[in-house]
Amino acid sequence: MAKIANKNSRKIGLPPGTLQYIGKERSEPIDISLFNYTQDHLDERNSIALEEVISYCKSDFTTWINVNGIHNVEAIEKICTYFNIHSLTIEDILHTDQRPKLEENEDYLYLVIKMLEYDEQTKRLQTEQVSMILGKNYVISFQERAGDTFEPVRNRLRIGKGRIRKAGADYLLYALLDTIIDHYFFLLEKIGDDLEEIEEELLVSPGTRSLTNLYNLKRESVLLRRSIWPLREVVNKLERDDIKQIKKETRYFLRDVYDHTIRVIETIENFRDMLSSMLDLYQSTISNRMNMIMKVLTIISTIFIPLTFIVGVYGMNFVHMPELEWRYGYLGVWMIMIMVFITMILFFRRKKWI
Amino acid sequence: MAKIANKNSRKIGLPPGTLQYIGKERSEPIDISLFNYTQDHLDERNSIALEEVISYCKSDFTTWINVNGIHNVEAIEKICTYFNIHSLTIEDILHTDQRPKLEENEDYLYLVIKMLEYDEQTKRLQTEQVSMILGKNYVISFQERAGDTFEPVRNRLRIGKGRIRKAGADYLLYALLDTIIDHYFFLLEKIGDDLEEIEEELLVSPGTRSLTNLYNLKRESVLLRRSIWPLREVVNKLERDDIKQIKKETRYFLRDVYDHTIRVIETIENFRDMLSSMLDLYQSTISNRMNMIMKVLTIISTIFIPLTFIVGVYGMNFVHMPELEWRYGYLGVWMIMIMVFITMILFFRRKKWI
Amino acid sequence: MAKIANKNSRKIGLPPGTLQYIGKERSEPIDISLFNYTQDHLDERNSIALEEVISYCKSDFTTWINVNGIHNVEAIEKICTYFNIHSLTIEDILHTDQRPKLEENEDYLYLVIKMLEYDEQTKRLQTEQVSMILGKNYVISFQERAGDTFEPVRNRLRIGKGRIRKAGADYLLYALLDTIIDHYFFLLEKIGDDLEEIEEELLVSPGTRSLTNLYNLKRESVLLRRSIWPLREVVNKLERDDIKQIKKETRYFLRDVYDHTIRVIETIENFRDMLSSMLDLYQSTISNRMNMIMKVLTIISTIFIPLTFIVGVYGMNFVHMPELEWRYGYLGVWMIMIMVFITMILFFRRKKWI
Amino acid sequence: MAKIANKNSRKIGLPPGTLQYIGKERSEPIDISLFNYTQDHLDERNSIALEEVISYCKSDFTTWINVNGIHNVEAIEKICTYFNIHSLTIEDILHTDQRPKLEENEDYLYLVIKMLEYDEQTKRLQTEQVSMILGKNYVISFQERAGDTFEPVRNRLRIGKGRIRKAGADYLLYALLDTIIDHYFFLLEKIGDDLEEIEEELLVSPGTRSLTNLYNLKRESVLLRRSIWPLREVVNKLERDDIKQIKKETRYFLRDVYDHTIRVIETIENFRDMLSSMLDLYQSTISNRMNMIMKVLTIISTIFIPLTFIVGVYGMNFVHMPELEWRYGYLGVWMIMIMVFITMILFFRRKKWI
Amino acid sequence: MAKIANKNSRKIGLPPGTLQYIGKERSEPIDISLFNYTQDHLDERNSIALEEVISYCKSDFTTWINVNGIHNVEAIEKICTYFNIHSLTIEDILHTDQRPKLEENEDYLYLVIKMLEYDEQTKRLQTEQVSMILGKNYVISFQERAGDTFEPVRNRLRIGKGRIRKAGADYLLYALLDTIIDHYFFLLEKIGDDLEEIEEELLVSPGTRSLTNLYNLKRESVLLRRSIWPLREVVNKLERDDIKQIKKETRYFLRDVYDHTIRVIETIENFRDMLSSMLDLYQSTISNRMNMIMKVLTIISTIFIPLTFIVGVYGMNFVHMPELEWRYGYLGVWMIMIMVFITMILFFRRKKWI
Repeated sequence: MAKIANKNSRKIGLPPGTLQYIGKERSEPIDISLFNYTQDHLDERNSIALEEVISYCKSDFTTWINVNGIHNVEAIEKICTYFNIHSLTIEDILHTDQRPKLEENEDYLYLVIKMLEYDEQTKRLQTEQVSMILGKNYVISFQERAGDTFEPVRNRLRIGKGRIRKAGADYLLYALLDTIIDHYFFLLEKIGDDLEEIEEELLVSPGTRSLTNLYNLKRESVLLRRSIWPLREVVNKLERDDIKQIKKETRYFLRDVYDHTIRVIETIENFRDMLSSMLDLYQSTISNRMNMIMKVLTIISTIFIPLTFIVGVYGMNFVHMPELEWRYGYLGVWMIMIMVFITMILFFRRKKWI
Repeated sequence: MAKIANKNSRKIGLPPGTLQYIGKERSEPIDISLFNYTQDHLDERNSIALEEVISYCKSDFTTWINVNGIHNVEAIEKICTYFNIHSLTIEDILHTDQRPKLEENEDYLYLVIKMLEYDEQTKRLQTEQVSMILGKNYVISFQERAGDTFEPVRNRLRIGKGRIRKAGADYLLYALLDTIIDHYFFLLEKIGDDLEEIEEELLVSPGTRSLTNLYNLKRESVLLRRSIWPLREVVNKLERDDIKQIKKETRYFLRDVYDHTIRVIETIENFRDMLSSMLDLYQSTISNRMNMIMKVLTIISTIFIPLTFIVGVYGMNFVHMPELEWRYGYLGVWMIMIMVFITMILFFRRKKWI
Repeated sequence: MAKIANKNSRKIGLPPGTLQYIGKERSEPIDISLFNYTQDHLDERNSIALEEVISYCKSDFTTWINVNGIHNVEAIEKICTYFNIHSLTIEDILHTDQRPKLEENEDYLYLVIKMLEYDEQTKRLQTEQVSMILGKNYVISFQERAGDTFEPVRNRLRIGKGRIRKAGADYLLYALLDTIIDHYFFLLEKIGDDLEEIEEELLVSPGTRSLTNLYNLKRESVLLRRSIWPLREVVNKLERDDIKQIKKETRYFLRDVYDHTIRVIETIENFRDMLSSMLDLYQSTISNRMNMIMKVLTIISTIFIPLTFIVGVYGMNFVHMPELEWRYGYLGVWMIMIMVFITMILFFRRKKWI
Repeated sequence: MAKIANKNSRKIGLPPGTLQYIGKERSEPIDISLFNYTQDHLDERNSIALEEVISYCKSDFTTWINVNGIHNVEAIEKICTYFNIHSLTIEDILHTDQRPKLEENEDYLYLVIKMLEYDEQTKRLQTEQVSMILGKNYVISFQERAGDTFEPVRNRLRIGKGRIRKAGADYLLYALLDTIIDHYFFLLEKIGDDLEEIEEELLVSPGTRSLTNLYNLKRESVLLRRSIWPLREVVNKLERDDIKQIKKETRYFLRDVYDHTIRVIETIENFRDMLSSMLDLYQSTISNRMNMIMKVLTIISTIFIPLTFIVGVYGMNFVHMPELEWRYGYLGVWMIMIMVFITMILFFRRKKWI
Repeated sequence: MAKIANKNSRKIGLPPGTLQYIGKERSEPIDISLFNYTQDHLDERNSIALEEVISYCKSDFTTWINVNGIHNVEAIEKICTYFNIHSLTIEDILHTDQRPKLEENEDYLYLVIKMLEYDEQTKRLQTEQVSMILGKNYVISFQERAGDTFEPVRNRLRIGKGRIRKAGADYLLYALLDTIIDHYFFLLEKIGDDLEEIEEELLVSPGTRSLTNLYNLKRESVLLRRSIWPLREVVNKLERDDIKQIKKETRYFLRDVYDHTIRVIETIENFRDMLSSMLDLYQSTISNRMNMIMKVLTIISTIFIPLTFIVGVYGMNFVHMPELEWRYGYLGVWMIMIMVFITMILFFRRKKWI
């Protein structure tokens, strides 16, 4: 379940820049892969040892280092130190409860973003933090665990067609960012499908289960929003500001990413709108049903309670009750009761209850 | 039904600028028409072949190319390439889930806008994406399917009166934009009529049907808003910014379009206001009716339950019940019951229930 | 009733600047009056013919032309053409669904504003559009129909005291604007009185009628807001911007008008606040009453249903029922029933229901 | 009761600057007091005649003229004219429905602010308008009626310690303003106490009285907000803008006043937050109680209605009813009824109703 | 309990800069500690006498003076006077109802911030005001009472590793600020846990207790928000503005603090979102339960009321009632009743009530 507040307390009082991994416990070893490429050459290395990383970097190539797993603090520190990354940035990489943000440093650009998964079984969102560092001619990306989200980018690098091999490290950053944001659409579609399912349910047979589902989706939408809203500012800054690591040609592509981000955010806002409309619908439907139940009760009671009174009257044991001995007393009572019944039915008809 | 989230997933991981049609499946062939005009001449060609398009363009004429249907990727690409359109722009033209937006490029202006239809039978909105490219002396418009929305503009071109033939391509863009936005008013009127109908229903006899209608309109209004809000910024940019493709005289007319856009948006906001007021009204009316039902039940029960108790007492079979043998016992009981009845009635009168 | 969406559809597809009256059908002839004045002279002409208007204008006088009725398109066009009014402006004058706005043109200032009437009988707002054109030394005002709102200004012109005859056309525009906005206060007072009446009703005896009234006022407040909000920006622009038609001395007076406008808007916002508080109050009061009704039902039922059961027991016809033959059986049953009754009453007392 | 809309209508159509008192009718004579002071001298005069005012002003002293009562139009006009106050400013002084505002004029600064009283008996707010004029070396303050709010400032002047006698007229203005705003805290405390009282009531025994109190406080909070919000901008302007009447040293003190204003506004917003939370609490509590009432009714009815049916069966008078003659028939019926009773109790236990 | 409005009234009318302690009554003596340090030396003194403070300050050391307890007005004044603190600042230090704020003065920077504790037993927030003064080479911190929040900073000073001893007074200020804000996360976690507990409760068995808890948390969240929101602006100002007391290197660390502040604020907003969702959930669940209760009542009543009527009919004592003497009369009545019973059950089945 999406935690309302994340655990941060382990860190209170430590000096800034103290390196400590804060996130889910993980046991698998961290996995490093590396791409070195120019327009004409491509050198791909997977699962390389920490020591090798540095030896592979060449100044006239564009280098992409991808690190899966950030729970090995020493390893992360080692890589970062080689690339001259500030200790506060390393701290942020290791701390998985960052908001999406962009930080300009003298030598590099630091970008944090959330990767999201929606588990349709449990109807829960799972977030993973991705940190990216854009230097002069390299990109380093840190993921919490191995995943295939970046696979399309790897393929485009391998095939070497299109702009990706020609353009520099900033274009690579754009490509990675674009892939993550495109993935959001996939996620939103799944949530949208769930929303429509609940909507159907609400219109057909609203019950406690739809209410719980509705509430859970609302809860997740809070998390979703928190993860994505700050992205707007991040991408806008990337596109607008005169950041020296970003070439002018790439900025045009970032404008496209910005458009997508806006669309993602808009869809989330629509979800929230829909969710609150649905809750209103639910409430009104429940009131409506209550009304119907009350009508049934009232009709039955209002018809039979007076009739029961009448038959009660002639169940009394008074010695002197002339009606009891009349020839057509019994028949008369039935007549009266039928009249009462018909009157009641007409009354409810006029009130449009039946 | 307006989808809450549109399908975008087909595109994840493809490099930017990969041309792929994303929208409703369509089978009809795409249809191209062309207008070449100066103040004195007009050359109109309908359903021309793709290859002819280019041959018809003349540099000293203003040219309007209208393309109905964008599902033929190669055709769209061919035309755009001739006019030197950037691949990211072509991608946007083909992708029918754009937000309204304006993009300035070196050689041309790219504008996306939504055309809306309201189906009064199904009470559903249908959106169609219109892309427009304004170059030095040409306008290219792309519609998803054939329609007669632009017919008035065509007629004005044919007749040749007014400013339209004299002014250049930017004025033509304005004319097309103006036609689309004027069409929104027509749409809003229809929705407004439906709203008033539901309002009437709510005041007279609120039921589950009005609730569903209300909910559906609310749902559509979310879509409507999403389609039109960004337009405000688009038109404002067109009017305010110093865009080289737009002449100063035309800007005056665009100010008029901006006014209309504001009015459209305001009407949508009014609809939303009205819808939430109506929901409040609905809820209160339902509560009111419940109250009335409960009152009927309570009055009947409260009167007859004590009376039934009284007659029950004298239905007991005790051997020693002196009242049973009294001469006026039966009459006395009736007296008591009538008194109870009158007391109850007076009680309800004082409480203003009857 | 205030229409949720105004009819605009008659105009779709016409070229801009096509002159067409859009508004309520009217049959009375349009009526033109004219004031020519300097500090020392005043020349007032009423109901003059269209042709005379122009002949009366003198360059060294300040001229105020007031036109009642704008449904005669040719007449309006003629006057405007003489004063060199742009065709888009004429179109706006004729189109009665404008938002309040201010347009600067080279030769003149164009101002649209709404005049409002509140019909206390039908509890409906009626809007009338007033267009004003401020030229170098003239003001032309267009009203939809004759009315006496401007009478105080006329009187001040006739008397000739105060600043009005000395100051130029811009001061006249200010005076007219001020009169209209002062009239809003009068309107708001009437609505405020109605609001307080409904409030009283809600606190004393909330019913369906108060709900409908509440809803209607809410509906009208949407229209009211739409008509007045944009005025804020208009008056602010008049006061702040360096508009060449407005003299510096007049700007000081416009600041006063701006203050009034803010106060009008604030009062409208208060109304909306009050309306939603009242709806909350209504809902809570209804819930409260339901509670009270339910309590009465529950008390009566809970007391008498067990008693009725007891008397039912001794109404059974078993041959072997020893109690029936006991000497004090009947008395005993009464004792038991009185005890049950008292227990119930004490139970309700403790629950604070009675 | 705080009027929703104030009466302004008496003024429609009058030329601007027409002097007319608009406010509560008052009969007491207006009362003028005057302080002339330098660091070393203090000359205090109370209840002086209108004619004397001017004679007492000396150019090398700082002068504070306080006027209690503004319903004497001629008197106010006379004073103002002597100090060269613009007629529109005089109009504003006389008109008691101003929003707090600050107006810079060439010779003086004009400040309007609201003094508030909270009547704990009637739970109503009462507003009084205070106008202050800051000239080169004088302050004129206008109150609607006599009051002791300014007494502490008078005392500080008399004692002559601290900065007040040394600093000029701008510091005096600050001191007056500070006193009024400090008074707001006193007011907010009283309202806060009332709020907590109602809160207590709601948690213990919510009833119609708490609802009415809640509603009244909400209503007053609308007035409160209207009176104080604009103050923020006023004080900010005083502190920030380069106003020539305010010395740089005084600006430091005004920053302090600004802090207080922000705190007052924040407290009002908290009240509004609390009020709407309380209303939610009220609604939920009412629903809860309804639930409890319904439970009692349902438990009693559900237990006794079937039992009553059973005893009814054996109250039938059929000739052939074998059970009636059984030896243990009566006992058997009791057995059955006790079983039904226990079953019902267990059913309600499982449902956690009892 | 968090007071809705704090008591400020004791201060009305006093001249500004009048020193008066406004806060909780405290009796313990105030406690002063002092750190003098350079990169190489550290001189720590605890519980020193007021007179010693000044003698310990050395110009070439960085000095941190921490004062626990501010209820001794003379002591506070003495210290402040030595450091040339403005009387308005001293007043703010003594007044514990400040909003977080930052004030730049010529010689020093004044910062107010709230320290928060959450008492899990009583579910109440407790705030403590911390004032910090940053001079050229000293920091003075004022706490309301002794606490160990600053202990980690003391330890880092004692150990002398990291940047803290090397960097100047501005870095010390940052370290203290960072410690306080990190503490907020700890607090938010506790509140988050409580929230999740209530959420659980709501989904399982919503009752009056959860409602009260919910309401209390909402109330506290208002206080929480009030204490932390203004911090955003404070920290932003510290980081952005060109404040001479803050060195450029330290600004980089303050950016980190700003990030944390944003995250704290976001979490609070999430809490508020969750709280209102929960209230909606509560309301809907209550409505649902009411529905269920009503259903039980309606089913039982609707089945047995008609049956009771039938047995009542044959309990009448008419002399001429042929059915009573029929051989199978009794059996027939049972047949009829069973049929009625089955019909009712089928009816409820079709309505999906059972």
